[in-house]
Amino acid sequence: MGATLHDEVKMSTNAMAWIEFAPGIDYKVLRTSAETGVWTVLFRCAKGSAFPPHLHYGAGEYFLFKGVMDYRMGRAHAGDFGYEPLGVYHERTEFLEDSELLFTNHGPIAFVNEDMSVKMLLDWQFFTERAREAAA
Amino acid sequence: MGATLHDEVKMSTNAMAWIEFAPGIDYKVLRTSAETGVWTVLFRCAKGSAFPPHLHYGAGEYFLFKGVMDYRMGRAHAGDFGYEPLGVYHERTEFLEDSELLFTNHGPIAFVNEDMSVKMLLDWQFFTERAREAAA
Amino acid sequence: MGATLHDEVKMSTNAMAWIEFAPGIDYKVLRTSAETGVWTVLFRCAKGSAFPPHLHYGAGEYFLFKGVMDYRMGRAHAGDFGYEPLGVYHERTEFLEDSELLFTNHGPIAFVNEDMSVKMLLDWQFFTERAREAAA
Amino acid sequence: MGATLHDEVKMSTNAMAWIEFAPGIDYKVLRTSAETGVWTVLFRCAKGSAFPPHLHYGAGEYFLFKGVMDYRMGRAHAGDFGYEPLGVYHERTEFLEDSELLFTNHGPIAFVNEDMSVKMLLDWQFFTERAREAAA
Repeated sequence: MGATLHDEVKMSTNAMAWIEFAPGIDYKVLRTSAETGVWTVLFRCAKGSAFPPHLHYGAGEYFLFKGVMDYRMGRAHAGDFGYEPLGVYHERTEFLEDSELLFTNHGPIAFVNEDMSVKMLLDWQFFTERAREAAA
Repeated sequence: MGATLHDEVKMSTNAMAWIEFAPGIDYKVLRTSAETGVWTVLFRCAKGSAFPPHLHYGAGEYFLFKGVMDYRMGRAHAGDFGYEPLGVYHERTEFLEDSELLFTNHGPIAFVNEDMSVKMLLDWQFFTERAREAAA
Repeated sequence: MGATLHDEVKMSTNAMAWIEFAPGIDYKVLRTSAETGVWTVLFRCAKGSAFPPHLHYGAGEYFLFKGVMDYRMGRAHAGDFGYEPLGVYHERTEFLEDSELLFTNHGPIAFVNEDMSVKMLLDWQFFTERAREAAA
Repeated sequence: MGATLHDEVKMSTNAMAWIEFAPGIDYKVLRTSAETGVWTVLFRCAKGSAFPPHLHYGAGEYFLFKGVMDYRMGRAHAGDFGYEPLGVYHERTEFLEDSELLFTNHGPIAFVNEDMSVKMLLDWQFFTERAREAAA
């Protein structure tokens, strides 16, 4: 009697706790998909924090609410939107001010060594598990 | 000599002009894809404005920055995130305060008549064309 | 203790019954997704059968196993693969021999009237419901 | 004056040359996407050939035309369709007869060492580059 729809979701991100990702970087998980591998998070990045070198094995998108992010494309300020296509290598992503951004990645991100070998794959499973642990 | 990557994009949404969608509702186009049909926009919705009844033929996602949105799931406030799955029918989406939201839809939205027949399909082509006209 | 994976599926299409789509055209449903709206079917199209004019609101892909299909791009024969992007209008798709094809569509297809108004939207829900009825 | 559509494609796979993947395994590239990372290929796998252990960082789908494939889900025969979700680990995929299959993967596949560290990531770029070299 009709195909079953996915659940509709409304969540208050203000009521959620930040989870630590790395020194100076915290996140809240808004959505992960076990089907497509997409993951959407809020990142809060303190002035001086940075993401290590990584390769995009899924396209990324960000919307910066607050702060200044310095990366491959230059400096992003509050109100800037960016699209990071498949295959892009981001040598460094540094935060010059306390920053907050909404970030979606359509698949895994590979943190890599200097020879581009894969150190760690960051994907929907990582964020799903951390969000579950945080909720427990 | 290597597969060609898509263009990486960084855009300042503050520098873009609002385009009128309907009385009280304006938008800025951040991204449209001719391959997947996804479209990402910023909506600015004045207090009292509303979206007419529509069916989601692609899942939608919003992040409300500012204001209050009243819809099928109740009231969303600044900082709220929502996921609107495929097949969901939104009878009304009303703004109780001046509001701004980032909105992504993965495919078309059908504005429908009372008998659910399709009045108009809102899709990536609509936003791509309007963004082009606005830029010209 | 770990993110839950989707179900892995292996199905024998030979053991499935054909379901009637239209005179001379039958199908078997291999997969539908309530999350992305993608649907994958096998179509069996008798010589002389045809799909009515339609617009692709999701990209389509086919692999023809058997027969001859005559459409916008010319004649496809057994072993031909086609990609039908978003927004493409197929005025007619006719089968000149008894044909079989694997077909995936990433979203809805709109069967349209002469003035391009939407007559009917064919989507994942249609195929999910029919497959359920056939299985019951 | 209208949004630009992607190219519509019709290709005769019978006219294409096989490219060697590994001993006993050849492929033809039907489609790769620089935007989504999806890749669709035909694989021809000789009796006794096998894919090494791998993890799916993108869901996979196959349709077996010919032969017998022995893998995690048991034996697949001609006419069988399979869906391999994100996160699935396939320790071995062996061909018990000369086989042919259409295969689509929605992102990268990681060939892994015994400790699950990543040996090599197989993705859209790999197939795009090989197809270009073969065409040159």
